[in-house]
Amino acid sequence: MKIVLDVSGGDHAPQATVAGAVQAARELGVEVVLAGDEQMVRAELAKHNAAGLRLPIVHAPEVIDMTDHAGQAARRKKASPVAVGLRMVRDKEAEAFVSAGHSGATMAGAVLIVGRVPGIERPCLAAPFPSVGGNLIVADVGATTDCKPEYLVQFAHMTSLYAQRVMGIHNPRVALLANGEEATKGDKLVQETHALLQGSTLNFVGNAEPKDALAGDVVDVLITDGFVGNLFLKQAEAVAKFATVLAKRTLVPRLFWRVTLGLLPTALLVALGRSRGRVALAGLIGGPALLAAVAAPLAGLRTVLDYRAGGGAPLLGVNGVVIIAHGKSDAVAVANAIRRAKEAVEGGLVAAITDADQHVQISATLAA
Amino acid sequence: MKIVLDVSGGDHAPQATVAGAVQAARELGVEVVLAGDEQMVRAELAKHNAAGLRLPIVHAPEVIDMTDHAGQAARRKKASPVAVGLRMVRDKEAEAFVSAGHSGATMAGAVLIVGRVPGIERPCLAAPFPSVGGNLIVADVGATTDCKPEYLVQFAHMTSLYAQRVMGIHNPRVALLANGEEATKGDKLVQETHALLQGSTLNFVGNAEPKDALAGDVVDVLITDGFVGNLFLKQAEAVAKFATVLAKRTLVPRLFWRVTLGLLPTALLVALGRSRGRVALAGLIGGPALLAAVAAPLAGLRTVLDYRAGGGAPLLGVNGVVIIAHGKSDAVAVANAIRRAKEAVEGGLVAAITDADQHVQISATLAA
Repeated sequence: MKIVLDVSGGDHAPQATVAGAVQAARELGVEVVLAGDEQMVRAELAKHNAAGLRLPIVHAPEVIDMTDHAGQAARRKKASPVAVGLRMVRDKEAEAFVSAGHSGATMAGAVLIVGRVPGIERPCLAAPFPSVGGNLIVADVGATTDCKPEYLVQFAHMTSLYAQRVMGIHNPRVALLANGEEATKGDKLVQETHALLQGSTLNFVGNAEPKDALAGDVVDVLITDGFVGNLFLKQAEAVAKFATVLAKRTLVPRLFWRVTLGLLPTALLVALGRSRGRVALAGLIGGPALLAAVAAPLAGLRTVLDYRAGGGAPLLGVNGVVIIAHGKSDAVAVANAIRRAKEAVEGGLVAAITDADQHVQISATLAA
Repeated sequence: MKIVLDVSGGDHAPQATVAGAVQAARELGVEVVLAGDEQMVRAELAKHNAAGLRLPIVHAPEVIDMTDHAGQAARRKKASPVAVGLRMVRDKEAEAFVSAGHSGATMAGAVLIVGRVPGIERPCLAAPFPSVGGNLIVADVGATTDCKPEYLVQFAHMTSLYAQRVMGIHNPRVALLANGEEATKGDKLVQETHALLQGSTLNFVGNAEPKDALAGDVVDVLITDGFVGNLFLKQAEAVAKFATVLAKRTLVPRLFWRVTLGLLPTALLVALGRSRGRVALAGLIGGPALLAAVAAPLAGLRTVLDYRAGGGAPLLGVNGVVIIAHGKSDAVAVANAIRRAKEAVEGGLVAAITDADQHVQISATLAA
């Protein structure tokens, strides 16, 4: 299997991308095509022991910046890794493309170069999101901002197939993101989509509020439009960050009490045994330990909410496997994204979406 | 000043509502009209020392349940506190109405009975939301689900007036909730509203992502439609709840290390002084103290995110002061909502929104 990686894409490129590619080639046994400026890639690759690994380089010297226009970048920069990689997928020279770079450019480029699956109106980006019960898949998180009910129904079908074929979820439970469980909740788009999904062959469980979706035991696939889905991710990140700031702030006024409580055992010992030197020692060690204990759960929250661990988000509805990794991806995250691409290829995801039966099924739902 | 309170509304009614009314009458010197079943209100009021306070009762025996249809409840249950209280506001027998009950019924009833301010197309609910820098006001959080750009522009004008007149914010900074700062971000509604707001007389600072809005130092008033705004609140609550669950879960595998770290000072003392009985004592006291220290910041997060403390959300655009308090309001929250109603009346909020100049200003923006 041949997977093209955008070596120039992402905040930590090319170090993280090349390191992730080396790791993926070693652990997964796949061929990772390194698309980027040849000299730069060669220099970076030389830092690794890549003997025996299949890591060919494809020269793609143009770089897409975050300031480039999403819709035009891949079209104008034909020698960029995004344009080169997507052409290889289109021409069946590679099975998948992975990028941690400008996600808008990759999404627009994928539609332009690889093209949509026949019958699919719009693509959707399906992102893994942590929940109490495990992982939730949210789509769309930003590929298609303004949606019609028919688009959302297709997102539901495609994401349900992804959940089955790639995530190994049997008969995934599909829900619509809304501000209440009742079918009368949500805006017009949600209400009309609700009616269509009820008449579909999907395992539609109705509307889900954020708290139900995050509980993780009632929903596997959460469907929404690209604007609301993108805000759903961003609000979660914002609240997690807010929580960290708040925790630091509440720590200050309560520090006295924390330290007092933390030193209580020591103080008691002292009262019983009278030993001043040892108290100072205990305070020196106990204080930092306490603070570390308080900060740990909040750091954990931000880690869990960071979707790097999920291995990137597939762009569903285009005629090839395209995985969008987080811009902040480190080497492990890049390797995970390549792994996800491999799983999508092995799971026959694009064929399943393209499959005539599925297509008829989707179309029948739309006609209903 | 006379403020009508829905005694039957809210999860903790009538205990919390009557106690909140007594507190408000005492602290604010206002007359709080208790609308509810007379016998029930009288029995509840007898538990308090309300001598000298102005707390008249208006008999309103019908109860609106959470299962009642929002649009029809106030119309059908003419003897409910919502219908009775809103009629008093309409007939200028009272200056404001406060309810912690069925918010949909209160909002629909307010439009039906009190009516909209001339020129205002749709009402919006403006909720206080915590931010790092203080308080943010978010509107709409659920009054008008499907919006046109013109509605959002009116929400922005009304909420800006509320921020000035009631919250005392000078020249409030108004932003549009979006998934990016650029004017090209957001869905069509956001993009079209952005253009209208740029041509307005408001202090429009552009789009704000959730992380910018929650930072609190760039935005005072955050404008969005009622569907997205309601999800914005609900996603924040869901993530806060998720954080608490996650913290409890991460505590378990790390408990060994926490306890080890927490007991380190004691262990050192023991190593130096050899005293086994005292170690057991220290462990008994130190363990729970450590756990309490870890749980505290997360409990704080949920408290801050709970918008009870903000004193309820005004329904802007109706021809009177109507305050919606949280369904979970306790006595303090009810008293805060009554205080907010008093401030809105004193600030001349409805007159300001109705004011010809403001109206012209809003209309001019719409025509632009």
